[in-house]
Amino acid sequence: MKDLYPSRKNDQPEILDRKDPVIHTERSQDDQAPLSKEQLDSYEKNGFLQIENFFSKEEVVNMQKAIFELQDANRDVTSDKVIREPESEDIRSIFHVHNDDNYFKEVAYDQRIMDIVNHLLGSDVYIHQSRINYKPGFKGKEFDWHSDFETWHTEDGMPRMRAVSLSIALSDNYTFNGPLMLIPGSQNYYVSCVGATPEDNYKESLKKQKFGVPDEDSLRWLTEQGGGISVPTGKAGSITLFESNTMHGSTSNMTPYPRNNLFMVYNSVENALVEPFSGSKPRPEYIAVREGIRTLTSAK
Amino acid sequence: MKDLYPSRKNDQPEILDRKDPVIHTERSQDDQAPLSKEQLDSYEKNGFLQIENFFSKEEVVNMQKAIFELQDANRDVTSDKVIREPESEDIRSIFHVHNDDNYFKEVAYDQRIMDIVNHLLGSDVYIHQSRINYKPGFKGKEFDWHSDFETWHTEDGMPRMRAVSLSIALSDNYTFNGPLMLIPGSQNYYVSCVGATPEDNYKESLKKQKFGVPDEDSLRWLTEQGGGISVPTGKAGSITLFESNTMHGSTSNMTPYPRNNLFMVYNSVENALVEPFSGSKPRPEYIAVREGIRTLTSAK
Repeated sequence: MKDLYPSRKNDQPEILDRKDPVIHTERSQDDQAPLSKEQLDSYEKNGFLQIENFFSKEEVVNMQKAIFELQDANRDVTSDKVIREPESEDIRSIFHVHNDDNYFKEVAYDQRIMDIVNHLLGSDVYIHQSRINYKPGFKGKEFDWHSDFETWHTEDGMPRMRAVSLSIALSDNYTFNGPLMLIPGSQNYYVSCVGATPEDNYKESLKKQKFGVPDEDSLRWLTEQGGGISVPTGKAGSITLFESNTMHGSTSNMTPYPRNNLFMVYNSVENALVEPFSGSKPRPEYIAVREGIRTLTSAK
Repeated sequence: MKDLYPSRKNDQPEILDRKDPVIHTERSQDDQAPLSKEQLDSYEKNGFLQIENFFSKEEVVNMQKAIFELQDANRDVTSDKVIREPESEDIRSIFHVHNDDNYFKEVAYDQRIMDIVNHLLGSDVYIHQSRINYKPGFKGKEFDWHSDFETWHTEDGMPRMRAVSLSIALSDNYTFNGPLMLIPGSQNYYVSCVGATPEDNYKESLKKQKFGVPDEDSLRWLTEQGGGISVPTGKAGSITLFESNTMHGSTSNMTPYPRNNLFMVYNSVENALVEPFSGSKPRPEYIAVREGIRTLTSAK
């Protein structure tokens, strides 16, 4: 398959135009969408959309309880799916929860979410990746700017920009507790990064990304195009949808306030993974679903 | 002299009450202040005050030009007053600019500033410390929570809480480019820290503070008392005044936007330094003015 979005092939970075729509259902069908025209406009323009109070207080309490129960249950577990802080043994993320845990499977396939992501991706969807992120007070580390799509394309073989990430806030998000920062409009440009991809890069990159890192000039250019940086804040229970190629990152969390979230990536069934464009062997199933597609789609 | 604010003496942290007023001129004389009653109330309650558009656009442009000229002039200079980034050689701060540079001496003794700090400290004042902070885009490092007074008391022998810091914003301050974060109300409590003070601690502590670091329980308690964390934002030319004991810190700056400022500490002439309460030898003059007091006061 032709590589429409080459990266890590050259020794100079390059900015390529996006070759896919941002919303994959025709805008003439807006009236059938579970989102308002304003919400669709905003997602299409900025590459992300926040919806406050998406989940009820009761649902939030249940999800908060569930993530800490799962953290407790994994405290002494040795598993690649359980990512720990580099300088401590605290659990930072647990992957593949939409598959391994019946409760989170239900959340991942919540009908309200499915209606939205089906519309944005213009097809049936499946879950490409899921995880719980624990960003505790004082200890949450920063995560530098990146396009998820760059990694999914290069390391996982995701052909096109036809995926959307969903972050469910399970703590109140302030501007100061290590929030998600996004560059509005950046979904429309693909930063082709320099350097190769080492084998088994994911073992390090989940802690700190060293390859597929956009260069400073491109980041400066993207913020100039987009007119700045956006930091959605909101109470627990709000959700942020962001397009696969939207440039984002997060700072460290020095405050006593935790910042926990549940994170799912929905990919179009028409955009299933092929061989990684880096030429390396595919990353494991818990990071990039290949085998589990059918089962998960039918769970809808 | 009795140590009213002991720190780094015990192996358990402790929170002590403040023993000094926050505003050292009687509030009955508010009508003689160069600040409004609302501004004085806010400073007294929160421990800081931001004033937007304090300097004119022309003044800002001149200051911006001056800080980069001084940075250029110091590029190849080896001096303790020039602090560089740990992982690069970029200049992060230049100290003692109110003394070494005629232009910054004028700024430091600007009559509008002198009127404010004289009122807040209830006496004549002198400059305890001055510096330019360069926090360039992408590279600005985080600085963890601390009370300046804790260090000035312990390492410099500043007896009482009767000093005020002034930060002049020379870049636009957003919530996302490594802003100053303050815990409102924290000026009213003194966190007595654990551990001793090594000799020449300042050589490391200007890059990353390891001693006089408040514990997490105290920080959590302070934010609960203060109802959160404040992040003043504003255009270049705005100023932030903050009380010597107000707990503050700043995150890293991952964005392309720089965050430069000019920083001066005004101390009451009635609060001149004594021997450091740590028992160590005093820090150098460029960090904590001892000898230069008379000259500087008379410059007013």
